[in-house]
Amino acid sequence: MDKKKVMVAIDESECSHYALQWALENLGDAISKSDLIIFTARPNEFIYVQASMFGTAPPDLLMSMQENQKTAALALLGRAKEICAKHGVVAETMTEMGDPKNVICEAAEKHKIQLLIVGSHSRGPIQRAFLGSVSNYCVHNAKCPVLVVKKPVE
Amino acid sequence: MDKKKVMVAIDESECSHYALQWALENLGDAISKSDLIIFTARPNEFIYVQASMFGTAPPDLLMSMQENQKTAALALLGRAKEICAKHGVVAETMTEMGDPKNVICEAAEKHKIQLLIVGSHSRGPIQRAFLGSVSNYCVHNAKCPVLVVKKPVE
Repeated sequence: MDKKKVMVAIDESECSHYALQWALENLGDAISKSDLIIFTARPNEFIYVQASMFGTAPPDLLMSMQENQKTAALALLGRAKEICAKHGVVAETMTEMGDPKNVICEAAEKHKIQLLIVGSHSRGPIQRAFLGSVSNYCVHNAKCPVLVVKKPVE
Repeated sequence: MDKKKVMVAIDESECSHYALQWALENLGDAISKSDLIIFTARPNEFIYVQASMFGTAPPDLLMSMQENQKTAALALLGRAKEICAKHGVVAETMTEMGDPKNVICEAAEKHKIQLLIVGSHSRGPIQRAFLGSVSNYCVHNAKCPVLVVKKPVE
């Protein structure tokens, strides 16, 4: 039987790191006996906003912004990998460029993920509508089971 | 350290039984090493609808309807317990009367649940708005992490 695949989607927010930490501490062999994939999206809106400010952005400016974003994503995934290693778990990392909510669901489907884990804030309804939009979208649209871990309010 | 507590909320739908089954098969020691609680709500709208049809419903009619509903809930929990036993898991059962989405979240908080598991349908947006309302509410309102397990479309 193939090993199960669990994917944790992270970004730079504290709540997504809390979700990863929670999964490592609470899901036991559902994590340790599975292939764990840490995924982060590289949103591309930023690039287009900047490009439009410059009329047509010089290709090397676009290129350098994309490079910076890639470096940031790799640093994020590197830190997540270290957190996993502290729990004795070797994680694979992945990143795709695009709207986070879409690329997370697409990656989960493409890689035949059995369990998708996302973080969310436990805040009031207005902030929640904005901040929780990625987790909300994943719950409604991912084909696999989705675990939403909220960072408790301190 | 206290044992962790996992709660699976079920009703008579196929998708909630799928969620229980999925959890037993996929969550390994996160289930077997925790206290597993199977919870079902006994909605009380039915009673009031019936009561209003009769003007003031005779107290023994109300009583007998409540009894029937309790018997149905206990049968549901009994079947869920058997499914757990087949996986070598001894589950505790609980039921409360009230609006399912509220009593599920209240029970999760009252019993200090670490992980709440709910089933959901993976259907189109209109059916989803109705059928998925309990799981949706739990994701937004429960204080603990919530795992939404969708029954795949066959």
